Amino acid sequence: MKVALMAGGTGGTKLAHGFSMLDDVELSVIVNVADDLELHGLHVSPDIDAVLYTLAGLIDSQRGWGVANDTYTAHAMFARYGEPIWFTLGDADLATHATRTRLLSEGTSLTDATASMAAALGLRSRILPATDDRCRTVILTDDGPLEFQEYFVRHRQEPEVRGVRIDGIDDARPTPSVIAAIRQADLLVIGPSNPVVSIGPMLALPGMREAILGVPRRVGVSPIIGGQALKGPAARMLDSLGHEVSAAGVARIYGDLLSHWVVDMTDAELAPRIGAMGVEPILLDAIMRTDADRARLAGELIGIG
Amino acid sequence: MKVALMAGGTGGTKLAHGFSMLDDVELSVIVNVADDLELHGLHVSPDIDAVLYTLAGLIDSQRGWGVANDTYTAHAMFARYGEPIWFTLGDADLATHATRTRLLSEGTSLTDATASMAAALGLRSRILPATDDRCRTVILTDDGPLEFQEYFVRHRQEPEVRGVRIDGIDDARPTPSVIAAIRQADLLVIGPSNPVVSIGPMLALPGMREAILGVPRRVGVSPIIGGQALKGPAARMLDSLGHEVSAAGVARIYGDLLSHWVVDMTDAELAPRIGAMGVEPILLDAIMRTDADRARLAGELIGIG
Repeated sequence: MKVALMAGGTGGTKLAHGFSMLDDVELSVIVNVADDLELHGLHVSPDIDAVLYTLAGLIDSQRGWGVANDTYTAHAMFARYGEPIWFTLGDADLATHATRTRLLSEGTSLTDATASMAAALGLRSRILPATDDRCRTVILTDDGPLEFQEYFVRHRQEPEVRGVRIDGIDDARPTPSVIAAIRQADLLVIGPSNPVVSIGPMLALPGMREAILGVPRRVGVSPIIGGQALKGPAARMLDSLGHEVSAAGVARIYGDLLSHWVVDMTDAELAPRIGAMGVEPILLDAIMRTDADRARLAGELIGIG
Repeated sequence: MKVALMAGGTGGTKLAHGFSMLDDVELSVIVNVADDLELHGLHVSPDIDAVLYTLAGLIDSQRGWGVANDTYTAHAMFARYGEPIWFTLGDADLATHATRTRLLSEGTSLTDATASMAAALGLRSRILPATDDRCRTVILTDDGPLEFQEYFVRHRQEPEVRGVRIDGIDDARPTPSVIAAIRQADLLVIGPSNPVVSIGPMLALPGMREAILGVPRRVGVSPIIGGQALKGPAARMLDSLGHEVSAAGVARIYGDLLSHWVVDMTDAELAPRIGAMGVEPILLDAIMRTDADRARLAGELIGIG
């Protein structure tokens, strides 16, 4: 069974891990790269790395990013050189960014660089950057426009969000690998990731929505449970941008792009409103506390439809 | 008093440290960059780094290279990615290479990148790459041509040396800063570094010898003491290339480029032969075991002539 999962951030990454644990699933994870950044001249792809590290069993699961038991010796040396250190790079992490940057500088695409690194880490699943073209999410705040990681990490999500812009999106295209993975998918899943800054930039790629609509089973998992995001700035960002902060509010953002919308049991009362949007509501235990939860939820998604 | 010291490798670096400890000395260290290399897409300048780390008090003095108490987490991750790991990069070291590479990629010259990093580390002395142009020492061995660090580190100086070639030397030039530092120098010193692969590539730069000959006091320190190199492959390399492995043999390589040639007391019997070359022999305790030895030897060199 072929699954194409769109992911960015912690929730989507956990679900990717869940699918990767299922024997009969051929998984392609389509990953947001609009919050990539350059640091110390290196290309950092936080969402790709979270998926790489999680599937390889290397992730620092407490934090949800970076490599477990990493050291921070380079970070301290960067500080001595007066380099920006608001984005903490572990030493193992730095090897990831240097390896990727070397491959890119040699003309390798981000897709091929990611495939080569995933293979080196022994991964079975395919990890596909949504695009090989440069596009960057810019958060429009009361403090002015901020690149996503500047908003998210450097400013700790404190500035009020007034809008979101994706620089370069008009000239960006989904990769042929992404389009092929979606076309061949038996099941397309939009993970419980931030709809505005994690999933949004992927859906904004020309041709992406059309490809998705070609898959009969298109299942989304709500990143909002009981009116709250489990992690990250999704709830406050949705509110600032005028969306209803609920599983129903996020369902409305995706609209008929999805055939099914998974909400946590605690949000059962939203089911009629979701159904009225023409999307079939599915009630599940959508919180992934343990590795077993991840595999269980992934298995339940496969059973839908 | 202005001192221009030409250095590459351990001996020259120790002597640079010695001069840097003298209050009344304005030191410019002219550093070999012909054994630079690229690793993981990063520009590594081993000789510049040895000088930077030594003058900043960061050097791993046991090994003579790298940062003391460095960690090797990135190294282990590079291994996972199948990256070449024959040249061990510590994590702090990696921050140095990444910072330098970023500056170079932004169009900063190696000279300016080095100056900016030296300033960040609080150094008072000037560290000047001999050239901003790419030139690379290639060791011609029975196993074929090897870039210097490949010969030195990867092949542990085992292959027999048949010759040395410096790729790119015809198009390389000493930097204006180097020429100015030599022209303004009250004393020019050639450190106790390998004459073939550390000093040789600097002297081969067009215009370098002429600039040096303009300095009245030109003092060299023998890297060979009692027929042996204190560290590194100099002795065996000199032998393979048909040179006499002695302080007199190295004096002959430099010829009239120098006005004075410092040999260790243990080599006193070579003094007449060196004098016969038209170079004034100076007998000193030339072995730098401690930091105090370094400052003492530097002070004695200032007193020459």
